[in-house]
Amino acid sequence: MKQPVLHTVLSPALLHLYDLSNTIVVIIDVFRATSTIATALYNGAEKIIPVDSVEQCIALGKATPNSITAGERDGKVIEGLQYGNSPGDYPKSFIEGKTLVLTTTNGTRLLHMALNNGAAEIITGSFPNLAAVTEFLMQQKKNVILGCSAWKDKFNLEDTLFAGAVVNKVTNHFKIHCDASLMAQEMYTLHQDNMHTFIRKTTHWHRLSAYGLEKDLEYCVTPNVANVLPLYKNGALLAMH
Amino acid sequence: MKQPVLHTVLSPALLHLYDLSNTIVVIIDVFRATSTIATALYNGAEKIIPVDSVEQCIALGKATPNSITAGERDGKVIEGLQYGNSPGDYPKSFIEGKTLVLTTTNGTRLLHMALNNGAAEIITGSFPNLAAVTEFLMQQKKNVILGCSAWKDKFNLEDTLFAGAVVNKVTNHFKIHCDASLMAQEMYTLHQDNMHTFIRKTTHWHRLSAYGLEKDLEYCVTPNVANVLPLYKNGALLAMH
Repeated sequence: MKQPVLHTVLSPALLHLYDLSNTIVVIIDVFRATSTIATALYNGAEKIIPVDSVEQCIALGKATPNSITAGERDGKVIEGLQYGNSPGDYPKSFIEGKTLVLTTTNGTRLLHMALNNGAAEIITGSFPNLAAVTEFLMQQKKNVILGCSAWKDKFNLEDTLFAGAVVNKVTNHFKIHCDASLMAQEMYTLHQDNMHTFIRKTTHWHRLSAYGLEKDLEYCVTPNVANVLPLYKNGALLAMH
Repeated sequence: MKQPVLHTVLSPALLHLYDLSNTIVVIIDVFRATSTIATALYNGAEKIIPVDSVEQCIALGKATPNSITAGERDGKVIEGLQYGNSPGDYPKSFIEGKTLVLTTTNGTRLLHMALNNGAAEIITGSFPNLAAVTEFLMQQKKNVILGCSAWKDKFNLEDTLFAGAVVNKVTNHFKIHCDASLMAQEMYTLHQDNMHTFIRKTTHWHRLSAYGLEKDLEYCVTPNVANVLPLYKNGALLAMH
C-alpha cells in the first residue's frame, strides 16, 4: 500500500510552499495556544472559536451565549478580553460547558492561514494531547502537514520539538522525505528526557518567563495530560469523540 | 563591551523578518553554490559574478573577457551555459585568472535578496572555507546573519549544519538569542563526526546523488580544503586578502 506523505513546516511564512488539499494540517503552538485549547476541551469546554482579531473576539463573545473571551498578544492578556492564554486559567470547575472565543499571536493566525490555503482537515496539537494526535494521524492514513506556529514567523524550538515527538511516533506509517521532519525528530529524541531543562534555553522561555509563567511552560511540555483531539469544524474547535 | 548579535535564518522566505543594516550576511548554499565559489576562488579565479537568470549569465559571459558561464537549475547544467555547479569542475589548471559568471537555483538568488534588503556586507560560506568565515566574523565584531539558501525556500539540513558549525566556533563572541542558531549548533555537534553518513539522509542527497554526484557532496561537507574568504564588492565575489 502506498503510504501517505508527512511534512513539517517550520513557520507560517513557509506554508504556501505546500499543497494542503487532501491533507490533515496539525496546528502547533506549544507556548501556549494549542496547549490551552487541548486543556480547555479536555476540561469540558463546549467548543473553542479561534479568531484573528481582538475586535472579532469581543464581538463574537457578546453574540455567543455562555461564552468567555480570551487571548494574548506578545504573551500578555489583551485589554478588552476577559482571560489570558494560560492553560491554568481553564479548570473543569470554570470552563465546563462554556464556549471559549480565543485570539493569540501565532496559533490562531496559522489556523486561519491553513483554512484559507485549502486544508482538508485541521486539528491542533500540543504535548498535553500528543497521543490523541498521533493515534488520529495513524488511523486516518491521509497526508499530513505538521504546522509550527513559530513566533511572528520566526522559527521556534518548542513547536519543532512537538513536531519531532509526532514524527518519532508515526514515522513507520508515513513516507517522510523532509529535512525539517528529520531535524525535528532528532531534536526531540535528543531532549525528550531533559525537556524541562532544555526549554529554559529557548527564546520563548525568556520572553514568557518574564511574566512569571514558568509553571505554565513546564505544563505545556508535559505529554498526555489533556488527551483530547480538537478538530476544527464549522468555525470552531470541538473535542472529537 | 556590548557583543554583536548573531541570528540564523533558515530560509530566504524568512530573510525579510531581520534587519540587515550594519550586518554581515553569510550566504550559505552548501550543495553546492558556495562550496563551488570558495573552491574556484581558492584555485585562483579572478572573480565570480553571481547572476539571477540564465539570460543574464549568457549576456555577461559574452561581455566579459576571459570569462566562462556556469550554473545549474535543479542540480543539472543549464542548456546555453558552459559549465555546471560542481566544485570539481574548477581546478587551478582551468580556472586560474578567469572570471566565473554563475547562476544557481538558491544561493545566487539569496545573495541578491540580501543585497536588495540592505545588507552592509555579504560573504559566502561553506565547509571548504569554514575557518576563513569564522575568523572574519570574530575579527569584524559586527552583527551577523547566517543565511541558509535552503531548497526553493524549504528548510534543508546541509545549510543548517554549516550554520551550526559557525555558531559552534564563534558562540562566545556574539550575543545569540535565536532558536534557529541553537538548533543548528546542536545538529552540528550531534553530526560533526558522522557527516558523510548523515548527509545521505538529507533530501538534497537523494535529489543530487541521482546525478552521480556523491563525491561532490562529500567534498562539500569537508572543512577547510579551500580556505578563502569570498567578499561581495561591486557586483562580484572576490577572495579577500
